[in-house]
Amino acid sequence: MPHREEVVELRGHIIDSLILSKVLDTIMEMGGDFEIIEFQVGKRKMDPSYAEILVRGKDEEHLEEILTELRKYGAVPKHLGEVRLEPAPADGVCPDGFYTTTNHRTFVLFDGEWLEVEDIEMDCAIVVYPEERRAVAKPIGEVKEGELVVVGDQGIKVKPPERPRGKKGIFGFMESEVSPEKPTPTLVRRIAEEMARHREEGKIILVLGPAVIHAGARDDVAWLIRHGYVDVLFAGNAVAVHDVEVSLFGTSLGVDVETGEPVKGGHSHHLYAINEIRKVGGLKEAVEKGVLKDGIMYECVVNDVPYVLAGSIRDDGPIPDVVTDTVEAQRLMREHLKGATFVLMAATMLHSIATGNLLPSWVTTVCVDINPAVVTKLMDRGTAQTLGVVSDVGVFFPELVDRLRELESND
Amino acid sequence: MPHREEVVELRGHIIDSLILSKVLDTIMEMGGDFEIIEFQVGKRKMDPSYAEILVRGKDEEHLEEILTELRKYGAVPKHLGEVRLEPAPADGVCPDGFYTTTNHRTFVLFDGEWLEVEDIEMDCAIVVYPEERRAVAKPIGEVKEGELVVVGDQGIKVKPPERPRGKKGIFGFMESEVSPEKPTPTLVRRIAEEMARHREEGKIILVLGPAVIHAGARDDVAWLIRHGYVDVLFAGNAVAVHDVEVSLFGTSLGVDVETGEPVKGGHSHHLYAINEIRKVGGLKEAVEKGVLKDGIMYECVVNDVPYVLAGSIRDDGPIPDVVTDTVEAQRLMREHLKGATFVLMAATMLHSIATGNLLPSWVTTVCVDINPAVVTKLMDRGTAQTLGVVSDVGVFFPELVDRLRELESND
Amino acid sequence: MPHREEVVELRGHIIDSLILSKVLDTIMEMGGDFEIIEFQVGKRKMDPSYAEILVRGKDEEHLEEILTELRKYGAVPKHLGEVRLEPAPADGVCPDGFYTTTNHRTFVLFDGEWLEVEDIEMDCAIVVYPEERRAVAKPIGEVKEGELVVVGDQGIKVKPPERPRGKKGIFGFMESEVSPEKPTPTLVRRIAEEMARHREEGKIILVLGPAVIHAGARDDVAWLIRHGYVDVLFAGNAVAVHDVEVSLFGTSLGVDVETGEPVKGGHSHHLYAINEIRKVGGLKEAVEKGVLKDGIMYECVVNDVPYVLAGSIRDDGPIPDVVTDTVEAQRLMREHLKGATFVLMAATMLHSIATGNLLPSWVTTVCVDINPAVVTKLMDRGTAQTLGVVSDVGVFFPELVDRLRELESND
Amino acid sequence: MPHREEVVELRGHIIDSLILSKVLDTIMEMGGDFEIIEFQVGKRKMDPSYAEILVRGKDEEHLEEILTELRKYGAVPKHLGEVRLEPAPADGVCPDGFYTTTNHRTFVLFDGEWLEVEDIEMDCAIVVYPEERRAVAKPIGEVKEGELVVVGDQGIKVKPPERPRGKKGIFGFMESEVSPEKPTPTLVRRIAEEMARHREEGKIILVLGPAVIHAGARDDVAWLIRHGYVDVLFAGNAVAVHDVEVSLFGTSLGVDVETGEPVKGGHSHHLYAINEIRKVGGLKEAVEKGVLKDGIMYECVVNDVPYVLAGSIRDDGPIPDVVTDTVEAQRLMREHLKGATFVLMAATMLHSIATGNLLPSWVTTVCVDINPAVVTKLMDRGTAQTLGVVSDVGVFFPELVDRLRELESND
Repeated sequence: MPHREEVVELRGHIIDSLILSKVLDTIMEMGGDFEIIEFQVGKRKMDPSYAEILVRGKDEEHLEEILTELRKYGAVPKHLGEVRLEPAPADGVCPDGFYTTTNHRTFVLFDGEWLEVEDIEMDCAIVVYPEERRAVAKPIGEVKEGELVVVGDQGIKVKPPERPRGKKGIFGFMESEVSPEKPTPTLVRRIAEEMARHREEGKIILVLGPAVIHAGARDDVAWLIRHGYVDVLFAGNAVAVHDVEVSLFGTSLGVDVETGEPVKGGHSHHLYAINEIRKVGGLKEAVEKGVLKDGIMYECVVNDVPYVLAGSIRDDGPIPDVVTDTVEAQRLMREHLKGATFVLMAATMLHSIATGNLLPSWVTTVCVDINPAVVTKLMDRGTAQTLGVVSDVGVFFPELVDRLRELESND
Repeated sequence: MPHREEVVELRGHIIDSLILSKVLDTIMEMGGDFEIIEFQVGKRKMDPSYAEILVRGKDEEHLEEILTELRKYGAVPKHLGEVRLEPAPADGVCPDGFYTTTNHRTFVLFDGEWLEVEDIEMDCAIVVYPEERRAVAKPIGEVKEGELVVVGDQGIKVKPPERPRGKKGIFGFMESEVSPEKPTPTLVRRIAEEMARHREEGKIILVLGPAVIHAGARDDVAWLIRHGYVDVLFAGNAVAVHDVEVSLFGTSLGVDVETGEPVKGGHSHHLYAINEIRKVGGLKEAVEKGVLKDGIMYECVVNDVPYVLAGSIRDDGPIPDVVTDTVEAQRLMREHLKGATFVLMAATMLHSIATGNLLPSWVTTVCVDINPAVVTKLMDRGTAQTLGVVSDVGVFFPELVDRLRELESND
Repeated sequence: MPHREEVVELRGHIIDSLILSKVLDTIMEMGGDFEIIEFQVGKRKMDPSYAEILVRGKDEEHLEEILTELRKYGAVPKHLGEVRLEPAPADGVCPDGFYTTTNHRTFVLFDGEWLEVEDIEMDCAIVVYPEERRAVAKPIGEVKEGELVVVGDQGIKVKPPERPRGKKGIFGFMESEVSPEKPTPTLVRRIAEEMARHREEGKIILVLGPAVIHAGARDDVAWLIRHGYVDVLFAGNAVAVHDVEVSLFGTSLGVDVETGEPVKGGHSHHLYAINEIRKVGGLKEAVEKGVLKDGIMYECVVNDVPYVLAGSIRDDGPIPDVVTDTVEAQRLMREHLKGATFVLMAATMLHSIATGNLLPSWVTTVCVDINPAVVTKLMDRGTAQTLGVVSDVGVFFPELVDRLRELESND
Repeated sequence: MPHREEVVELRGHIIDSLILSKVLDTIMEMGGDFEIIEFQVGKRKMDPSYAEILVRGKDEEHLEEILTELRKYGAVPKHLGEVRLEPAPADGVCPDGFYTTTNHRTFVLFDGEWLEVEDIEMDCAIVVYPEERRAVAKPIGEVKEGELVVVGDQGIKVKPPERPRGKKGIFGFMESEVSPEKPTPTLVRRIAEEMARHREEGKIILVLGPAVIHAGARDDVAWLIRHGYVDVLFAGNAVAVHDVEVSLFGTSLGVDVETGEPVKGGHSHHLYAINEIRKVGGLKEAVEKGVLKDGIMYECVVNDVPYVLAGSIRDDGPIPDVVTDTVEAQRLMREHLKGATFVLMAATMLHSIATGNLLPSWVTTVCVDINPAVVTKLMDRGTAQTLGVVSDVGVFFPELVDRLRELESND
């Protein structure tokens, strides 16, 4: 008899999180079959539900394929085997068929114990250290020869975020479509409330693109840093250079930030700004020597807010603070993202998606961009928890600062 | 005891269509409570499921509010009352609290019988004609004084489309996000297959914006009409005028459609085109008198394809064929949409959303636009069945015609 | 000898307005030839320049074609004939070869006198009334049988706006590209200054799309009307309906404008809003009867600010105030635009372009939209004087009101 | 007397290239004054014009500022001093007030001789090697301590491209606005003609983003390489990885490129593709070992078309061929751009702008993107010669290949 079957279990808010539906749907789409063996619906909203489902595939391989998909929804075979491990054949190379991670909480059954995978992030491999009884998500490039890498899907449990229930969270409406028709003032107020909370209890990452400076929001971002709303800054060479240019010349790419008019001779300013910073050796040195006296980078330096300026092939210069090796820049970003609870991304597709790729799915993420495509792409690429705000950073940041000031004065 | 309860029933593919989840979710979000009285899961993919749910509200009014929401998902009270009817107080005015329609199949329980609501369309009232035992969806403006209008939600059953099961439909992947990263050649091939099928078995509506002509797709659209792929054309004054301009002068808004270069003196062409049509009295007359010899409108005339050219405040002229009264234009569009099975919208936000508003939810709808916001907005506004194709009509239509030619030569 | 020649004259700031270049360029592109007969450069910035150019065409017709193009730049034949007039053959039909207008100041040489064309607007015909010695621009559709219409280009002088010289105007930087990278706070401050000035000395037209309400800027727009910054409002049914919906239900398309969350049952609100207004007979009646107590339309009614609500095929209802005939709506818009000095357009492509089409080229025009394509299209369609602000109306209007308040308190 | 004056000369097609206007305009805007000393207009289209202008500033410094600006238009002081040189104070640091380049042809007057600046590119410094009598444009970062860098603007002549005259070039209409309303089929035909010509006589650079693969144009791009239409490929890790993924699995980011539907398990494919390439050591090795058998990268390898895959912080992996250091990647791109005559950029903002930054202003550049903002930004950033095509690469490339095939078969 060619058929093969296995019983999987599902627990939790599997109906209102749409998980049961997706599981049954997946089985059917993949050409499998199922029977519901047992089904207990949580009759009240706080009760979890439970289901046992008999999954049937055409043959062993087909069944395995189906079970692999089901694991993404937290459906685990009732009689679960342990994870299978194979040594990495070389530095930066994984064994064939290695398991690739999602950005959800993940556990592996190793030696009879469920280990939570540390540093989880999408598109990684999982390395198990048997001695230490630890499992860690690692980008392929960082796996060392001989490290034990999880292969196949056996012994793995994934917990996608269940929907907030009863009362929705502060961003309860954030799942709906990306649209410029949302009431921006309301969004700004809520983001301010969240940032006030995360300043106290969490860790806030700010991800910036250069349009923040061109659009006139530099002073507001500097205010955020000065007032403790930023724990780490991610940006590129351009943000730092334009910020310095404003400080030294009052222009951004040669355009007067007060009047909005191009300044004659201003086209040299950003290169002169770069040259000044190169001359003294970096941003910290520029602050110490009194060359740089205000702005975003200045506030980072004097308030000990670490920053990662990641290099790109568009950079002029760059200034010495820029990490020109992209693999090293990613590594530093990963380091700083540990413990992050709130990420605010503004006006940069490159850095927003790069940061999104490194985030676990439970970190609150807000992306502000005038181009709806940036937010859409961020969510397409897996950072589905993002609250997209289609707005103009030039007026968004002033409003945000106004709301935060109000909250501070109410305390 | 302040609580009030009612038992509702759900039938159909309520799990894999996510309907059960939405129902339970809605109850909880609205502060209500529930118990699952009975639950039978369809154990195989062709079996429907069934659930009986006891819904509890804080008081009569609260319960009513919840039941109103649940009706949208097809959840009907087990012991269902009949629809309540009240006469319209004046022409074009509905009684207070009148029921407003969705674009899904809808039934009303009248005099012991479930009547399917005719001409269903979102944002209408329902008028019941007791003598004829008919229920009809009508825009507010068309309701006549004294007609019996459904008020409240009692006695109403709504059937949202259940997801195609097992094998997905030809547009199985169409629910995913609007994105320019879809493989356009594949999309075009599938649209061609659908159009070939609907030409035989259905009724195809083509909705056009003027960019179709500027972008160079006029001959391809004319081909579609000539070959029977268009049963009705919806457009505005501009499409017709630019189409005539190409025929008379070889330019579109003064730009040579062959070379893409502005023609000296060409700025007068579109006004001259309008004047020519006004002179002879209309498009049909222009064809008869040999003034208009090719193009989109020409093909409509000689192939007896009806068209509705709806007026807008941007129109120059307009030509006599344009229906300048927007209420009358809507009425004509409604008339022509009866029996439509496939709608292809290209390069127009205004006409696409206007047409979408008039469509039942089961009509296959494709919207091609280079601006993803158009498709997003169409779906935001309730035309959720839309397959959005983010592409350039200037190359989309030639490809579509190539695919249709291939299909024809394969027959 | 087949060649034909004619001397044309150019006067004014023909170098720094690039007019001379365009004239020479046009002659060469069209295959003509020229000699500079006389050339006096204004040696100081206030001096006009003067040039006499001999233009040579291959034959009479070719020369005529060239001269026709040159007239757009104000280059007039030295020995200029009078305008040629022909009677309109029927109502709404112009004689063949009729002259089509630009939106620049235009003069016709009639009976030895230069008459300035009244009500100038792009894409019109010019009708001359010999008795009254008047010339008037009229849309084709409004030309009456027998009226004398200008044909050909002879006897016509067009004065495109010369560039502001020396010190640039308040929007001196407005000619540069449409870009979201402009410093929005600066733009807002300048727009506020302009509006303060035009409130005193001019006539301000506000053109609105419904996103203004969804995005949360309703109170700010109401403030503008209450404080005299709006002389006429142009919008559509949707703006009025959503505005009323907020007043009656606190929602816009069913979304709570305070919290940004959809309200259960809210999908009926906009139809209920329409029904309420239809019930009482219109917006004015709704204000008088105390049904409508605040908002944009309320402020228009109580402050006697006229409005034109133009119909579209997307309208639900519509409410009785809507002008459903698009030709009549255009006519009313034309009427109200007379004497306009400043136009602020926000979040509507349809109404912005429609209004732009009706404006002379010297009216200061600002278009705020989150979609750069709207502004680009407005300029493509000939409203080249537009200052485009790529921003979010939800934060733009609050900022604008803040700046206007500051200006008021400084007085 | 505080005034200072200097006579500058202008030669060439200074009227129809708008150069004279810009010069006079600049003087006035900067608060200077002028008199036209001599003015000879080229009376026929092939004759150059000549002007001598007396420029007057308020003082020495003001005059210098004005002259600095005028140099950009090729206006050189009649009695011109030699370039001033200062040694670079350290590696990668320029002397204060160093001259910053445009992307136009540039000459320096050194030791009585006009040297053309080699490797010209915007935003560089100019280093002069007296022994070799050479002047070279160098990015700041590559200037070595002690090298002689040009400071100030004296002794510098810039030649912006003069407009093509008489008959416009093949892309004569390319200067007009970026718009999706251009006739795409015409644009494609012309681009094909250009590419056919540059394949014979020039050097073609292709710059690709990953959407080219998602959108279904991989085979067409492979065809271009195989048929000699690509001399160098610039892209990033993602293009190579998705290309390999299609080869190995038939999917792009897990989506079947034939059907457009996500493949179950497909989310691992791109990581598996990366792992395969890492395992064998690179793309060339993958081709040699028979792992990679078709596609874009395969064609590059077998046809000896060099490629630069520049790293970014969004990269997974990356594969060994990626140049992860952005400064090194820029250096390689510069190397390969030497002698380039035609650049086709498709579906990538990052790589397009990066490449644009490195190009001289006379290289024909075409940028195809569905997002008009990409093209606008490219031009804002100084790559003004770009022909922007707002289209969908998924249908653009098939059309391009069809046109090239036609041209080949006509030979």
